[in-house]
Amino acid sequence: MSAVEFAHIEEAAARLAGHAVRTPLIESPALNDRLGLRVLIKPESLQRVGAFKFRGAYNRLVQLSPAERKRGVVAFSSGNHAQGVALAANLLGMPALIVMPSDAPAVKVEATRGYGAEIKLYDRLTESREAIAAAIAAERGSTVVPAFDDPHIIAGQGTVGLELFHQSQALGATLDLLIAPVGGGGLMAGTSLAIKTLSPGTAAVGVEPKGFDDTLASLKAGSRQVFKPTTRSLCDALESPAPGELTFPILQKTLADIAVVDDAEVAEAMRYAFSTLKLVLEPGGSVGLAALLAGKIAQAKAGATVGLVLSGANVDPDQFARVLRREL
Amino acid sequence: MSAVEFAHIEEAAARLAGHAVRTPLIESPALNDRLGLRVLIKPESLQRVGAFKFRGAYNRLVQLSPAERKRGVVAFSSGNHAQGVALAANLLGMPALIVMPSDAPAVKVEATRGYGAEIKLYDRLTESREAIAAAIAAERGSTVVPAFDDPHIIAGQGTVGLELFHQSQALGATLDLLIAPVGGGGLMAGTSLAIKTLSPGTAAVGVEPKGFDDTLASLKAGSRQVFKPTTRSLCDALESPAPGELTFPILQKTLADIAVVDDAEVAEAMRYAFSTLKLVLEPGGSVGLAALLAGKIAQAKAGATVGLVLSGANVDPDQFARVLRREL
Repeated sequence: MSAVEFAHIEEAAARLAGHAVRTPLIESPALNDRLGLRVLIKPESLQRVGAFKFRGAYNRLVQLSPAERKRGVVAFSSGNHAQGVALAANLLGMPALIVMPSDAPAVKVEATRGYGAEIKLYDRLTESREAIAAAIAAERGSTVVPAFDDPHIIAGQGTVGLELFHQSQALGATLDLLIAPVGGGGLMAGTSLAIKTLSPGTAAVGVEPKGFDDTLASLKAGSRQVFKPTTRSLCDALESPAPGELTFPILQKTLADIAVVDDAEVAEAMRYAFSTLKLVLEPGGSVGLAALLAGKIAQAKAGATVGLVLSGANVDPDQFARVLRREL
Repeated sequence: MSAVEFAHIEEAAARLAGHAVRTPLIESPALNDRLGLRVLIKPESLQRVGAFKFRGAYNRLVQLSPAERKRGVVAFSSGNHAQGVALAANLLGMPALIVMPSDAPAVKVEATRGYGAEIKLYDRLTESREAIAAAIAAERGSTVVPAFDDPHIIAGQGTVGLELFHQSQALGATLDLLIAPVGGGGLMAGTSLAIKTLSPGTAAVGVEPKGFDDTLASLKAGSRQVFKPTTRSLCDALESPAPGELTFPILQKTLADIAVVDDAEVAEAMRYAFSTLKLVLEPGGSVGLAALLAGKIAQAKAGATVGLVLSGANVDPDQFARVLRREL
């Protein structure tokens, strides 16, 4: 399987039933009033490991053979994919080694270790995580689990879209718009594929952080553009240099647009989520909200019904405190 | 109407439909694993105004006559009831004046003003809020809206229990235990009345903060005990000196027990909610979680299914930051 089809997302949903949290669809009258929209919020921050990443990881790992399970899995990730793979491996009784940058948020490193994974730290500036992971995998015979460029991972993340559609439908709502973050594009590829299959009239708009709008550049160019990032973003989870080889063709078909938000807008969205939505969000998890609050989604016409994916909440307490105190 | 009956809660639910948020029932596998329980969380932190108080306030105000609406409402509250009354009055187009202590959390004062209410601050140590509210109500002909000792308020809060029961039932779960905070007892009286009517086998356990365990003392004495508080609690929302005249007889019938938690346990629960549940909670909103995490609920036997009400999330950003940094 290389191309991802809608049926694979439905199969993933069946595999995840009883293992992943079916996150609720929530609505804030205060947010609706402020934006003049009906925003149906899908808080994947409430997913196991605090991010949607558990879905794809579990869907990938549960399909490994007994022999493969025994030899374990290797992944590289700055945090949320690391935790998703670590927990899924733990639940399925297989060893996991995660290659993480030495400057990853402490909360993500600790949580990954807490799920029983072995951690190997590397220097983001001088070492190649792909090379480290490949070497370890070769030595141990382990399976490398990509963060997004894998059909099972994409199908797993697509269950967010499947649930969002069915939960909206149960409210009698039709989504005019789908908004979700874009890093490597796994979440958005799977989710937009699910939503556009079930509701072709829904426009899908991705959101990237400033300096990491590689998918926007790729869509404009009509081919994958690889960035050489020169800055950091508050959104550690979305610092991907390029869309994936599998995710990009899907995004080309499904996306209407990409909005770009800066760190100040992201911090403002985190404060709004704290004070009004009462949800903890990490920077990368709040970019869709940030784009809406900053008026950066041209497709969000007055009265529109919007499905908004808030993708994660793994933020260091100290960083969160600094955001609350406007020190960031 | 003076006694509260189950039918009044169902009537309140009909009045609140489309106005209050039907908060989701959420579940955290991490919390379940840690406690060895199945905890079905009812996050009223996600309710309008960030606390369950909107339910009772709306149910009370919507029943006022056109003439009464014109003369407006007066309430006294340190914060969440203030916001509930202010928003309900705003939605129903009537003036509201709220008497608030001058040391109420700034976030609660600002939010109350933001809903369009007039605010009158008083000194908690030297002035009587009841006298101030009564004088204003007499002068303007306004209706005083009590925070908990009112049958319509109790019935409105009871819709939390109604939803909790039906949402649990939809999961095929039977509640062995109901846990909710107790201040004046409005939330617990309404909620336990609803749950015990629908599921007589469910044990209801309240939680009070240390120094304000007036309901526990009253239950032991068999009559309402009025405390003269000598300290403050982190749980500003639960600093009531006595159970209500209407709430106490209900609590006498419905409660199996009351647990008491201290500030350190509450702060720990707020950090757990932040880091694991990814929910913002105010101190008073987290006492049930605090009691569970601290092992203070004797009725929470291994494997039990627990309905846990997290009642509010209106906490100053600076206070929240101090809790995260363990400065509190």
